[in-house]
Amino acid sequence: MAAAPQAGTPRAVVVKRRPAGEPTPEDFEVRDIPMPVAEPGSVVTRTIWLSIDPYMRGRLREEQTYAVAVQVGEVMTGETVGVVIDSKHPGFAPGDIALGARGWATHLATPGERLVKLTPDAAPLSAYLGILGMPGTTAFAGVTEICKPQAGETFVVSAASGAVGSVAGQLAKRAGATVVGIAGGPDKCLWVQENLGFDACVDHRSLDLRRELEAACPKGIDCYFENVGGAVQAAVFDLLNPFARVAMCGMVSQYNDKTFPPGPNLGFVVGKRVLIQGFIVTDTPQRFTDWRAMAEPLVADGTLVYREDVIEGLENAPEALTGILTGRNFGKLLVRVSHGG
Amino acid sequence: MAAAPQAGTPRAVVVKRRPAGEPTPEDFEVRDIPMPVAEPGSVVTRTIWLSIDPYMRGRLREEQTYAVAVQVGEVMTGETVGVVIDSKHPGFAPGDIALGARGWATHLATPGERLVKLTPDAAPLSAYLGILGMPGTTAFAGVTEICKPQAGETFVVSAASGAVGSVAGQLAKRAGATVVGIAGGPDKCLWVQENLGFDACVDHRSLDLRRELEAACPKGIDCYFENVGGAVQAAVFDLLNPFARVAMCGMVSQYNDKTFPPGPNLGFVVGKRVLIQGFIVTDTPQRFTDWRAMAEPLVADGTLVYREDVIEGLENAPEALTGILTGRNFGKLLVRVSHGG
Repeated sequence: MAAAPQAGTPRAVVVKRRPAGEPTPEDFEVRDIPMPVAEPGSVVTRTIWLSIDPYMRGRLREEQTYAVAVQVGEVMTGETVGVVIDSKHPGFAPGDIALGARGWATHLATPGERLVKLTPDAAPLSAYLGILGMPGTTAFAGVTEICKPQAGETFVVSAASGAVGSVAGQLAKRAGATVVGIAGGPDKCLWVQENLGFDACVDHRSLDLRRELEAACPKGIDCYFENVGGAVQAAVFDLLNPFARVAMCGMVSQYNDKTFPPGPNLGFVVGKRVLIQGFIVTDTPQRFTDWRAMAEPLVADGTLVYREDVIEGLENAPEALTGILTGRNFGKLLVRVSHGG
Repeated sequence: MAAAPQAGTPRAVVVKRRPAGEPTPEDFEVRDIPMPVAEPGSVVTRTIWLSIDPYMRGRLREEQTYAVAVQVGEVMTGETVGVVIDSKHPGFAPGDIALGARGWATHLATPGERLVKLTPDAAPLSAYLGILGMPGTTAFAGVTEICKPQAGETFVVSAASGAVGSVAGQLAKRAGATVVGIAGGPDKCLWVQENLGFDACVDHRSLDLRRELEAACPKGIDCYFENVGGAVQAAVFDLLNPFARVAMCGMVSQYNDKTFPPGPNLGFVVGKRVLIQGFIVTDTPQRFTDWRAMAEPLVADGTLVYREDVIEGLENAPEALTGILTGRNFGKLLVRVSHGG
């Protein structure tokens, strides 16, 4: 690559205190760190891309959820794509591109077996943190393992312009379903319809979400890919058809909340034989390899569409996290930590 | 049979008005009806046993649920076992015992293909409305298709002394699970432990249900067979383990309600990868034949235990329905409409 900028002095973003409610930049601190050294079996990468995802809010909670919480004073967690600058693992050599080093840091040392070596030309590197990475695999798992949309059914996905929702809807569309997105604001809704090819998109900020959703789903809802919870969930649940399948991927609308509001009365689940299934994509590592193999050519030839929202500079990662929890991003949110490959 | 009493003048219980809240005998009316006549293909039975089940409350609602509502002026619906007194169907002759004629009536005419001919000696006839019939099949479906308890797991069932719950728990016990019942009052709890062999039973009327349930389930809850909803559901959901399976069979605590209270916030479903699945047993008719074949010998030799609560006389069916909705029955609730076989 021409004029590859350097990452400069090694730095990391450390958790300074647990956020009360919405995280702010003051909850984090950028610190200089020693340049990581490759121990036997490990690989040092210079970070190019850092992924910012809603799940990160859970890692900042005191209580452990399905994954271990990040402790105060520790480097914040997050997935990266980086270039190998040192390696004591036989699978990696300097100049290789590696996916999977974790941390909000310019340089990271990682056991080689946790990394995936990427072919630089198969797709843009950033795509491996989005449509070809964890978010895309999440969409793939929820759609194919839980929602299972059939031709002619109606499939609804919330956070439809996001990294997960945009892929989920495209997969349902390919399965022959009528796909209705729910997104925040007219710009996102327009993009979802025009660029992703969804049949409709409803603005969740609308004054009458329930009525607009009903108009967009005249035959009811057979599949729901849940990313947000709250009022959106309530509106969708009202319209579920008998034998509907709900993939419970996330409920980002409440990730900043200390206590959670009541949810839906579940009586309808019985009479309508509804399936509600929570899932965490990392439970089945094979999903990642399967999805990458399937989706790489579809991304390369433009069949699957994605959009990125790029924030420049590691020091802006905290603000990016704040933004993704309130829907300020538009597309897959990434921090460019350094340039080049 | 010796001294078989007659059913007397043909009578039926008709819906007089839709109940507001708890059904009362005043919502029904006992009427003389003409003796039914066997049309070609149909069978006339004299009712011996009428089953009373919680789902009947749903049939009295104005709005249709998963099945068609009973209209005011119509005979109330319910499953019966009866003796054939007239037949124009080649599969049935007078004296045969038939399962499946529907209606709160002393005499019923039914298309022969909707009836099942019972072998009088395989098990007591009433059992075909309980452990060998719809409630037993419901337990079978929920346990084997949704809960799938594994050896060493903790399985919880509400309404544990009832027609469905008592079978569900016994099946989970046979699968090697630790089985904890939830029932109303010390008598039911004692019976569940002593006669059904559950490992523990918690009284849902206890002042601290949540704490007692936690004490009975020190390793958390892996499977929940839901029959009641409300506060019991909330207590169980708090204790669900990762990868828990919830079979949503019914929520009898709210069947008399006009509007439904909020339910659980579903955030935990994601992180714990919980499966919540509603089901209606009649969706898969094969379940009934499979279960009867499997369970008949286990009922005959006493391996599977059941308890019946018998109300005498068709005219008392309305009060029986009121009672089952508030847990006044103890075991499978039946109305003896006439004697004999």
